[in-house]
Amino acid sequence: MIEPQTVKVGIIMGSQSDWPTMKEAADILDALGIAYEARIVSAHRTPDRLWDYGKTAVDRGLQVIIAGAGGAAHLPGMMASKTRVPVVGVPVQTRALSGVDSLYSIVQMPRGFPVATMAIGAAGAANAGLMAAGILALNDPALAQRLDHWRADLSASIPDSPQHD
Amino acid sequence: MIEPQTVKVGIIMGSQSDWPTMKEAADILDALGIAYEARIVSAHRTPDRLWDYGKTAVDRGLQVIIAGAGGAAHLPGMMASKTRVPVVGVPVQTRALSGVDSLYSIVQMPRGFPVATMAIGAAGAANAGLMAAGILALNDPALAQRLDHWRADLSASIPDSPQHD
Amino acid sequence: MIEPQTVKVGIIMGSQSDWPTMKEAADILDALGIAYEARIVSAHRTPDRLWDYGKTAVDRGLQVIIAGAGGAAHLPGMMASKTRVPVVGVPVQTRALSGVDSLYSIVQMPRGFPVATMAIGAAGAANAGLMAAGILALNDPALAQRLDHWRADLSASIPDSPQHD
Amino acid sequence: MIEPQTVKVGIIMGSQSDWPTMKEAADILDALGIAYEARIVSAHRTPDRLWDYGKTAVDRGLQVIIAGAGGAAHLPGMMASKTRVPVVGVPVQTRALSGVDSLYSIVQMPRGFPVATMAIGAAGAANAGLMAAGILALNDPALAQRLDHWRADLSASIPDSPQHD
Amino acid sequence: MIEPQTVKVGIIMGSQSDWPTMKEAADILDALGIAYEARIVSAHRTPDRLWDYGKTAVDRGLQVIIAGAGGAAHLPGMMASKTRVPVVGVPVQTRALSGVDSLYSIVQMPRGFPVATMAIGAAGAANAGLMAAGILALNDPALAQRLDHWRADLSASIPDSPQHD
Amino acid sequence: MIEPQTVKVGIIMGSQSDWPTMKEAADILDALGIAYEARIVSAHRTPDRLWDYGKTAVDRGLQVIIAGAGGAAHLPGMMASKTRVPVVGVPVQTRALSGVDSLYSIVQMPRGFPVATMAIGAAGAANAGLMAAGILALNDPALAQRLDHWRADLSASIPDSPQHD
Amino acid sequence: MIEPQTVKVGIIMGSQSDWPTMKEAADILDALGIAYEARIVSAHRTPDRLWDYGKTAVDRGLQVIIAGAGGAAHLPGMMASKTRVPVVGVPVQTRALSGVDSLYSIVQMPRGFPVATMAIGAAGAANAGLMAAGILALNDPALAQRLDHWRADLSASIPDSPQHD
Amino acid sequence: MIEPQTVKVGIIMGSQSDWPTMKEAADILDALGIAYEARIVSAHRTPDRLWDYGKTAVDRGLQVIIAGAGGAAHLPGMMASKTRVPVVGVPVQTRALSGVDSLYSIVQMPRGFPVATMAIGAAGAANAGLMAAGILALNDPALAQRLDHWRADLSASIPDSPQHD
Repeated sequence: MIEPQTVKVGIIMGSQSDWPTMKEAADILDALGIAYEARIVSAHRTPDRLWDYGKTAVDRGLQVIIAGAGGAAHLPGMMASKTRVPVVGVPVQTRALSGVDSLYSIVQMPRGFPVATMAIGAAGAANAGLMAAGILALNDPALAQRLDHWRADLSASIPDSPQHD
Repeated sequence: MIEPQTVKVGIIMGSQSDWPTMKEAADILDALGIAYEARIVSAHRTPDRLWDYGKTAVDRGLQVIIAGAGGAAHLPGMMASKTRVPVVGVPVQTRALSGVDSLYSIVQMPRGFPVATMAIGAAGAANAGLMAAGILALNDPALAQRLDHWRADLSASIPDSPQHD
Repeated sequence: MIEPQTVKVGIIMGSQSDWPTMKEAADILDALGIAYEARIVSAHRTPDRLWDYGKTAVDRGLQVIIAGAGGAAHLPGMMASKTRVPVVGVPVQTRALSGVDSLYSIVQMPRGFPVATMAIGAAGAANAGLMAAGILALNDPALAQRLDHWRADLSASIPDSPQHD
Repeated sequence: MIEPQTVKVGIIMGSQSDWPTMKEAADILDALGIAYEARIVSAHRTPDRLWDYGKTAVDRGLQVIIAGAGGAAHLPGMMASKTRVPVVGVPVQTRALSGVDSLYSIVQMPRGFPVATMAIGAAGAANAGLMAAGILALNDPALAQRLDHWRADLSASIPDSPQHD
Repeated sequence: MIEPQTVKVGIIMGSQSDWPTMKEAADILDALGIAYEARIVSAHRTPDRLWDYGKTAVDRGLQVIIAGAGGAAHLPGMMASKTRVPVVGVPVQTRALSGVDSLYSIVQMPRGFPVATMAIGAAGAANAGLMAAGILALNDPALAQRLDHWRADLSASIPDSPQHD
Repeated sequence: MIEPQTVKVGIIMGSQSDWPTMKEAADILDALGIAYEARIVSAHRTPDRLWDYGKTAVDRGLQVIIAGAGGAAHLPGMMASKTRVPVVGVPVQTRALSGVDSLYSIVQMPRGFPVATMAIGAAGAANAGLMAAGILALNDPALAQRLDHWRADLSASIPDSPQHD
Repeated sequence: MIEPQTVKVGIIMGSQSDWPTMKEAADILDALGIAYEARIVSAHRTPDRLWDYGKTAVDRGLQVIIAGAGGAAHLPGMMASKTRVPVVGVPVQTRALSGVDSLYSIVQMPRGFPVATMAIGAAGAANAGLMAAGILALNDPALAQRLDHWRADLSASIPDSPQHD
Repeated sequence: MIEPQTVKVGIIMGSQSDWPTMKEAADILDALGIAYEARIVSAHRTPDRLWDYGKTAVDRGLQVIIAGAGGAAHLPGMMASKTRVPVVGVPVQTRALSGVDSLYSIVQMPRGFPVATMAIGAAGAANAGLMAAGILALNDPALAQRLDHWRADLSASIPDSPQHD
């Protein structure tokens, strides 16, 4: 049984349409017993919300911010500009450019403001949750153990041979 | 002779290294007698400067903001989020991705926040100056005439045949 | 209530198949009470229509021309060659190249002839309408106010958290 | 000895800077004894010159038009719109996008207006000359023979093994 | 009424799966009354058929060869190696790379062997038919007239405004 | 004065040729007083070294592993497979593909094994150092303060206007 | 009738989801009477399985290893690092990047560790089977004959003309 | 001391300009004591030479054909069409498209005709030599031993830490 904790991870995204992707991060955090919040913070539509979120992140005790965005995906990078809390970026897949636009906008940050960029889409969102877990596990032995088990289970789940339906 | 005017156009860029590109916009504005200012406003390093610039743009009477940036080029899009003054974006050429990263980060803006994106590099910066001129000319007959002349001169400068040095 | 006005914005496109995309621009202009016309002007199939449209644009009082095209999308750039009225280009998504062809053909204009390029597809068309509004608002305080409200409404519509259907 | 002929091929290009590339087409035509003219016709800077060139092409007896352009390379496609004389397009290499922009702008023409697109850069320009020769040779047995010889010489010039300097 | 003619154009393709694309070329040739044949000639599976087709093309009186292929699309280029008859290449759209592979394999021919490359997919195939028509029309006034009419009809078919279903 | 510490960060790279890039990470760690080691660990040439490094990372007390690699850049991803210590990946710029190959190979990790991917090249390496600092600062208030100062100094270093040399 | 043989070819893949692609390789090997095994070996989830597979490959008498993977596809390259048995790599098509990520991760191997890369997707998997057959046929005259027949049958199956359903 | 052998590997390339790249393959074969020949065989300029080379490959005892080519690189694929001897393809780097054209033209072969594609440029050519060695080593224990040593030496040459010149 995992005790309620204060929020350690903030999952933010530009719009409701990003949730089916970002839910994968939430599911991983749930599975590993990590307290998080999920918020809509749009770099362009609610820039002041972004400002406030970034400015209070340290004081609120956030340890990792997972930010998902698509297209000219400015949310992760702008958040990295506003706080030294590690920002993990998830490029959401887009219609015309398949998320290459999201990827370039997130990963190509200038010197000074790193964004820990994950793969495009759902696998990237899940991995954002795992990256957050890996960071938190550095100072949380119980979580480290849960993460080790999660990883061991993943490996153990692989069958020896493909099923020839 | 062109009379001094109040500043109509703001040229902003993320760093000093963008100036050789953005100077092309300034040169066009100089040639057309349009008053402008050139400022360094970094979306990531000076986000509060960006905030202030955007929030005061209308009151300061800015008519067009030309914003140049490279890589995860967030400056034009964030400025478009902060003001309804038309923002013209110039993707600065980059080392690894040749400015495709800059282009995607600037042009792929979500519904609500247009950035008038120009070509990558120096030609794009010059065209940003001309786009600003075209906008200002809508309500400045003298400028409209100067712009018409500039365009006519450009056409007249084309020789009939290539020089076979 | 908005009074009928003379046409301020021309929405042009290469073919009927571009309309589902370009309608997004029309919807924005409708929402903001901006008078416009929608015309089919094909750079290749009706070049003389393009010529005439461009040559008469200033005299007809057009303030912005929104031009959508796909593939070897010559319409926006050729229009920019024929008039100093600001041209906003919308790259229509294409089947094989997803609109990257449209984007490059529209944005990579040579020095002298800017096209204010928007994102690929429907979001880009909507933003073309907003860019037109931003330009017209420079000299139309009532429109400026409507645009400010539209932008404020957009921001206000963002919920705090994603819906976990 | 080849007799003077009336001009059969028009080599057109957007600017003087395209000449080092397009000269390769001229060299091939010289080598094969095909009369040509070289003209600067800019789609954007001299659109009326483009119009006139296209409208008079048939009456002037032009058999092939070779058009080179870079970036948003509208010249070949617009020429194809104005005349049924076959247009061969040469994508000139560009600084930021290496000519991929030129290639897409030239080759992705809509149904109705073909441009016979060649490779990016100098090899493409040379091949434009050869394509013109192949078209003219259909009705010029002497040229057909010269072209056959040129091709045979090219094949004969290939050594059996690489030189290990 | 169009008289039966000997075959002027060969439409070749690598496999049956290319036919839905290449049929567009055939339809144009039918519409313009140009005699053609359609053959499956695979560069890799039937290289000797390719050899024979290329070697006999001049003697058989072929004036244009339209070659469609997808992926590592070697057919157009290899045909251009075997005959001086003009080869028009159609990049067939592919599953993983959308025809960019086909396009590069067809258009990036080395000096000496031009392939007149068309757009990716069905529009490119239709344009291949029109390019063939344009070449044949150079020496066939009746066809030139039919082609002029076809082009005029295309232009006349464009409505003034989009239908707002 | 910063006291000697046990190694917190491992900088690993595939070959000596990656050092000019990865040195940027080392310089940041030096500037922020973070103890690190720099090792050559090649995924392909020294896979057993990679194995050992990964297996002992937790026990050795490593908190972050910065891994730089170019081309089919397997080092960061394989290290992420061997340890739950957070791995930060730096795509080294390559000759033919400019580091797009490195980027895709590093960032597109499958569910289960995140790599915190940075920008291509030197800026990415510097940011890897800053990402490591941000992670370590979560539990090191003195480092957090140094990082805050570093960030503040970066912002303070931006002049108001570009130098017009 | 083909006699049972010891396993000559190992088909390995990162996950069950790769099987629909990799089954094409198995089908070819079945058709040519080549004994193989199909195994799931994940570079990231079961790295020790990869290690063992590679280390024992020579002693087990494997002659060719066919490795399919998608995204940051490390399996083929890591296997090439662990054994001198020829590794044939199949880039599995991916959702966002269509397999370009898989292709670059597999083909761009550094000096020392070749992976014989095939086309993206099912055709590439089938060809991996044929490449294995071609290698084995070098020392198996009966297989060489079967492969020659298979190739002849493929060529013979091509009809002369497309079916105009 | 290695005894003279009959030629086992053919290195072929489209032109002399490919030799600086392909020499890397020759150097590897020299280092491993594998007899080879180096020939210029152009798919387009000397198609009959290609035909003959392919048709006689089996009878001449060639075990591997290494084929390098750039641009619309048809040589490896056409060779694979003409012989069942394994063909290893090397995409030569090109000026405009950096070898992406070469890569796609070589790797995207249709079902039936595999080309074992290597990395773009010199590293790919060296690896082509190693791939040939790996294939030949399957039936040449002495070569297998030399290859094992070569691989071991490569691993042993990697220093523990980068040199901080």
